Amino acid sequence: MLGGTRLRIYLQLRHVSNMAHLTAEIISIGDEMISGARLDTNTAWLSRRLAELGVEVHFHSTVGDTLAHNVDVFRIAVQRADLVIATGGLGPTQDDLTREAIAESIGVPLQFDPDSLAHIEALFSRRGREMPERNRSQAMFPVGATPIFNPQGTAPGVDIVASRADGTTSRIFALPGVPAEMKTMFDETVGPAILSGGQGGQFIRHSVMKFFGVGESEMEARLGDMISRTRQPRVGITVSAATISLRISATADHVAKCESMIAATREDIMERVGELYFGDGETFEQQHAVDAILRRRKERLCVVELGHAAPLGNWFAAIGDSPVLAGGLSLVGLDELRRFAGSEHADATLQECIETVRQRFSAEWLLLVDAYPDLHQLEQNAIPESSITFSVSHPDGRWTSKTESIGGHPSIVHPRIAKAGLRYLRQCFANPTGEQ
Amino acid sequence: MLGGTRLRIYLQLRHVSNMAHLTAEIISIGDEMISGARLDTNTAWLSRRLAELGVEVHFHSTVGDTLAHNVDVFRIAVQRADLVIATGGLGPTQDDLTREAIAESIGVPLQFDPDSLAHIEALFSRRGREMPERNRSQAMFPVGATPIFNPQGTAPGVDIVASRADGTTSRIFALPGVPAEMKTMFDETVGPAILSGGQGGQFIRHSVMKFFGVGESEMEARLGDMISRTRQPRVGITVSAATISLRISATADHVAKCESMIAATREDIMERVGELYFGDGETFEQQHAVDAILRRRKERLCVVELGHAAPLGNWFAAIGDSPVLAGGLSLVGLDELRRFAGSEHADATLQECIETVRQRFSAEWLLLVDAYPDLHQLEQNAIPESSITFSVSHPDGRWTSKTESIGGHPSIVHPRIAKAGLRYLRQCFANPTGEQ
Repeated sequence: MLGGTRLRIYLQLRHVSNMAHLTAEIISIGDEMISGARLDTNTAWLSRRLAELGVEVHFHSTVGDTLAHNVDVFRIAVQRADLVIATGGLGPTQDDLTREAIAESIGVPLQFDPDSLAHIEALFSRRGREMPERNRSQAMFPVGATPIFNPQGTAPGVDIVASRADGTTSRIFALPGVPAEMKTMFDETVGPAILSGGQGGQFIRHSVMKFFGVGESEMEARLGDMISRTRQPRVGITVSAATISLRISATADHVAKCESMIAATREDIMERVGELYFGDGETFEQQHAVDAILRRRKERLCVVELGHAAPLGNWFAAIGDSPVLAGGLSLVGLDELRRFAGSEHADATLQECIETVRQRFSAEWLLLVDAYPDLHQLEQNAIPESSITFSVSHPDGRWTSKTESIGGHPSIVHPRIAKAGLRYLRQCFANPTGEQ
Repeated sequence: MLGGTRLRIYLQLRHVSNMAHLTAEIISIGDEMISGARLDTNTAWLSRRLAELGVEVHFHSTVGDTLAHNVDVFRIAVQRADLVIATGGLGPTQDDLTREAIAESIGVPLQFDPDSLAHIEALFSRRGREMPERNRSQAMFPVGATPIFNPQGTAPGVDIVASRADGTTSRIFALPGVPAEMKTMFDETVGPAILSGGQGGQFIRHSVMKFFGVGESEMEARLGDMISRTRQPRVGITVSAATISLRISATADHVAKCESMIAATREDIMERVGELYFGDGETFEQQHAVDAILRRRKERLCVVELGHAAPLGNWFAAIGDSPVLAGGLSLVGLDELRRFAGSEHADATLQECIETVRQRFSAEWLLLVDAYPDLHQLEQNAIPESSITFSVSHPDGRWTSKTESIGGHPSIVHPRIAKAGLRYLRQCFANPTGEQ
């Protein structure tokens, strides 16, 4: 099944001039979405991915498991977008109406696809189970559709070109609502199909670099024209609780070409903001970088968090089976820390208390965060700004500190403080004098 | 400005028979939404609130800050929904197009409202600042609209009835995108306006009860017809990381009547699921219940978390200025706990180690969670099921334990374990023998 004429013309234009953009609408289907019971993370993910492919997302629509509403949104979407990406409603139950809604909205019947049924049956037999009769419905497709292979589940996707009255077309891709299945199918099949416009031979490769230490607007200013929408490879910027991700997306007719384009772009990025870089990968955070450094050094770390949060203890524990992250301690303040350390004499210095705790954890390094602020007392809409002291006890017995003023939206100020602490710790690893 | 004829007829029908439901579409506006940079929590919140009012939400639509797309979604929404609730695009910048889009979609001009300008100017002067000229745009309204009072910000909302070609109408409410402002304006103005259908005199009151200990489907089964959509007061169920909220919404022509209806419904609920109840309020969690109990008892608690997470330390710290939550310790496992306790003899029992730690925290109570499982090793889509032991050291020196098998989606299994630990602790408070 090849893409429609309009799609091909758009893509050819885009490859020539980078001026014409394909437009898209994302449709999210399910009672749990329309009722507000679940947040729609699929649509946000698809929006970002489509932007990376140079597609302009103009509309999102959400409907429940009601056929008439589904038909309505597909009819409207086909009229106003070049690409329609739907998620949900492809399961085997009577609530799953996406196949039927697409068929009705474009005026074709459903027909049975024996190959898809064979795939579904094989999946059940590999799990040692017989396929329930109702799963047969997942092998029904609107006439003219191509199934989209689902390597992880029973629900194949639907790829079909819908014609408009004026002879132009829109291409619909329907994917399952399960995020892991949806993402794999988009990256393996839908993304490449959009890029090649049905002509094949186009490849896309991604690379994600992670940064911490400046806000989004400063990052954008320093990257300048690198984040232009028309640049190739495209560099997309996203921020999550003060961690900045740069996602490089290269498209070319050979994988090797994608990879060399990505390598060159990574070098450009490192020249501009290299000192903020800490690692690669969608889910890679500074605690993973710290874990990796300590494993190489064969040294252990513990963390003491004072005040009104203790995220680092949780983050370190979640890394799992690290021989170098010894544990965490959370206490209200310095007095409690002194009491906890049980120093014999009342005038024990803070450093002596820390030393006691570090030894109990059998760790060479200790990071102290003093202290996470209380966010309950804030006036509504106020932006807190707190002075936080990070102290690090080094394996050679030295003790270094740094005080930073840290603010931001209340929902991210605690993680931002924790991340600033990890950055200071990384600076201590890199620079044994502990000076900035 | 009174609601349209169709709206009034619908509401009258609804009050008589409870058969006819108003339908709604929610429109979310902003480049940060359409690009996927931000998750749309406003729409989910509005969906749940509208359901509580007995309104059926049929569609969500999202658009960026592009006038033509905004006009398109408002035109479509007015045709297919009785109520259109929009969020975003009411700020003072050129990107804020909602006022213009509504005017264009229903074919009326914008006009200046002196009262709204006076409110905006007063807000600036209270903050000791002069109003920038561009904020004048926030006092422009489509002809026929009523401003919706915004007690917290400069952007008033828009309430206007749009006519359809067939003589029926749809009512549009446009609210700011800032969640705190949007929620206050919905609860104070939009919700009551929907209930009264423009005739005034209807009140709504809410009460939120919190529960832990069973899954959503068992909760639904035990509540039976109490969660029926046509019940008055309505009881809505939502689940967040294994905590169940029941939100009671009573509507009547007197506040006192709402309150007595709520009181009776609370009694019915307590009869059915009272043993799972731990407190009241949207943001109230078990750690708040534990904090309140310990304050009454004037006893302190510390927590030791082993394994691959440590959420309780963070939750307790976040409560803020509690004199009874002494702190948290996270370690990989029991061997590390023995080493940390530094017991003189190698054959010290676990209880002796715990006793040492409890004394260092100067706490009467200690809760030990052994241990949070590693979720990294899981096969994709697998549902983990782990055996977790909760142990509690009591003020009188007793030591009680309980082992539970806990599973669920990987994203909630760690919080669920932490919450099961808090439940066991609450059982220990209530039942000094520690037996179940």
